[in-house]
Amino acid sequence: MRESEVIERLRRIATAPEARGLRDDVAVLGDLIVTHDSIAEGVHFLRHDPPASVGWKLVAVNLSDLAAKGGKPVGALLSLTISGAGDWEQAFLGGIEAACDSYGLPLLGGDTIALPPKAPRVLGMTAFGRSSERIPDRGGGKAGDAVWLVGTVGDAAVGLTQLLADRHATGPLVDIYRRPVPLLVPGEVLAHHAHAAMDVSDGLLLDARRMAQVCGCTISIELDQLPLSSAFVAERGQDRAARLFAATGGDDYALLFALPPDLDPVTLSLPSATRITRVGSLAEGTVPLHLTFGGEPVELPEKLGFEHAGVERRNSDDRGPSPAPLGNRS
Amino acid sequence: MRESEVIERLRRIATAPEARGLRDDVAVLGDLIVTHDSIAEGVHFLRHDPPASVGWKLVAVNLSDLAAKGGKPVGALLSLTISGAGDWEQAFLGGIEAACDSYGLPLLGGDTIALPPKAPRVLGMTAFGRSSERIPDRGGGKAGDAVWLVGTVGDAAVGLTQLLADRHATGPLVDIYRRPVPLLVPGEVLAHHAHAAMDVSDGLLLDARRMAQVCGCTISIELDQLPLSSAFVAERGQDRAARLFAATGGDDYALLFALPPDLDPVTLSLPSATRITRVGSLAEGTVPLHLTFGGEPVELPEKLGFEHAGVERRNSDDRGPSPAPLGNRS
Repeated sequence: MRESEVIERLRRIATAPEARGLRDDVAVLGDLIVTHDSIAEGVHFLRHDPPASVGWKLVAVNLSDLAAKGGKPVGALLSLTISGAGDWEQAFLGGIEAACDSYGLPLLGGDTIALPPKAPRVLGMTAFGRSSERIPDRGGGKAGDAVWLVGTVGDAAVGLTQLLADRHATGPLVDIYRRPVPLLVPGEVLAHHAHAAMDVSDGLLLDARRMAQVCGCTISIELDQLPLSSAFVAERGQDRAARLFAATGGDDYALLFALPPDLDPVTLSLPSATRITRVGSLAEGTVPLHLTFGGEPVELPEKLGFEHAGVERRNSDDRGPSPAPLGNRS
Repeated sequence: MRESEVIERLRRIATAPEARGLRDDVAVLGDLIVTHDSIAEGVHFLRHDPPASVGWKLVAVNLSDLAAKGGKPVGALLSLTISGAGDWEQAFLGGIEAACDSYGLPLLGGDTIALPPKAPRVLGMTAFGRSSERIPDRGGGKAGDAVWLVGTVGDAAVGLTQLLADRHATGPLVDIYRRPVPLLVPGEVLAHHAHAAMDVSDGLLLDARRMAQVCGCTISIELDQLPLSSAFVAERGQDRAARLFAATGGDDYALLFALPPDLDPVTLSLPSATRITRVGSLAEGTVPLHLTFGGEPVELPEKLGFEHAGVERRNSDDRGPSPAPLGNRS
């Protein structure tokens, strides 16, 4: 069974309006935005990743979902598993604490359970955010909207590749893989203007296609417009192949917005360091994703991101790092 | 490291007032009661338990936390892991749906991740409840309060024992182990009168001692007053040993309340089937737990419940059922 079948089943169960048809990474309960993300050892993080970075990442991936909806963090519950002698957990909690402090996220509770011996760790967090304004979902984009990306893509995927080749690898791209930065302030500014909004976690092309499918539009992504970091370019260059790699990597935690075409985000009060780039547009059409490079159409790669991780993972080694270690965060 | 050390560390991080010092199974966010419980294969459920019963149990253990605080269910997020071909997950979701339907709990979202091959399943749920009145915590009990228990104790522990002896065992106690019933309506009626309230999940004596420690009182439990089901008595009798077994078993999902001594709960509008029993009292004192049988003091058993499951589990077989399969749900 593919993960999509399970999600289809979930969708038939989750019929309340607050569930938003499960089209989103979040649910909305009154003025609260609620989201839950779990991460598993050997799937979303590597066995040898420093535990403090795993704690940081768990907080960051949840905050990224809030960021895409313009939510201010108001609290979180931690689902902690204990496996082994406990040193790992203490260091992990150090990372949780650092990220909670950095982003003003109070830890409100949760639970702590033991795992059977040798079980891969599974850590979860439920995060709560609040917004005083309309909370955009994924599905409100209209033909004619401009598609904007906040942040860069591809960095974490390179960092992961470096770690899979050498688990002692270091450098800025390894840092980005291990310690993503949730784009809370840009998200808060932009979400209120957005027709559609989501974070990019499974690969830009895959997530963009998801947005287009829910909007009932075609999304065109201009590969040559993709924002790349200088560290990425130094490592991979910026030709078409490099850009396809960046557009299908995962763990970016960039934000994707469909904005009215006449809105120039530069006129908004974004933080000065915000990197925001127009990467495409929405149009009428039934093919959800269209890709160009230098104005010419580009054939879609076979894999747009990490969609059916549950199936893909089954052929890889038990507990070891994987070349496709990113679960579907939808 | 003991689980208590990890919780101590968490307590130092979770300093927001909504966290209630982590003395509770829930946090309170405005008028929302929020709770998260996870269950792991081989720890909180058996590998051969029917997956639909595991889904039911995950919902029920979360609702039990809401019940103890008088919360009406308003929604839940599911943290689903996929491991294997997916048939297990489909049946599991059937149990989730049945329990959500039974208790009026809308499923609002969550996430779905893949696990590495052979990883024990870890399933989690965050449940939201709402209360229009004061939400009792564990720590408000006063010397002189009467201690009341809603439900019975020991049933699930016998059911588990039967399953560990024969995984094809059936009967009412196996059913109770696999499909606990959250006591939402009695909880809603009683919580508003309670000085202190919690659910009993790790063993009555262990949970009662936790309540006493937070209240700064001594809790006296009268073993001969413990409510036992007829199925329990038929299997185990009701002598002192049977009552000690019942008082230290886990997975009861009974509710424990410290009520003003002059309040007779029978005068409240409880559902007619509610089994509510006065099992003890709170008094001034520094020894948290005091046990009697027929008015005579009883020495405390070595194990009051399942406190440090993380440590205990480490010596048992990988993934197999365990004689102490209940994690600390605090």
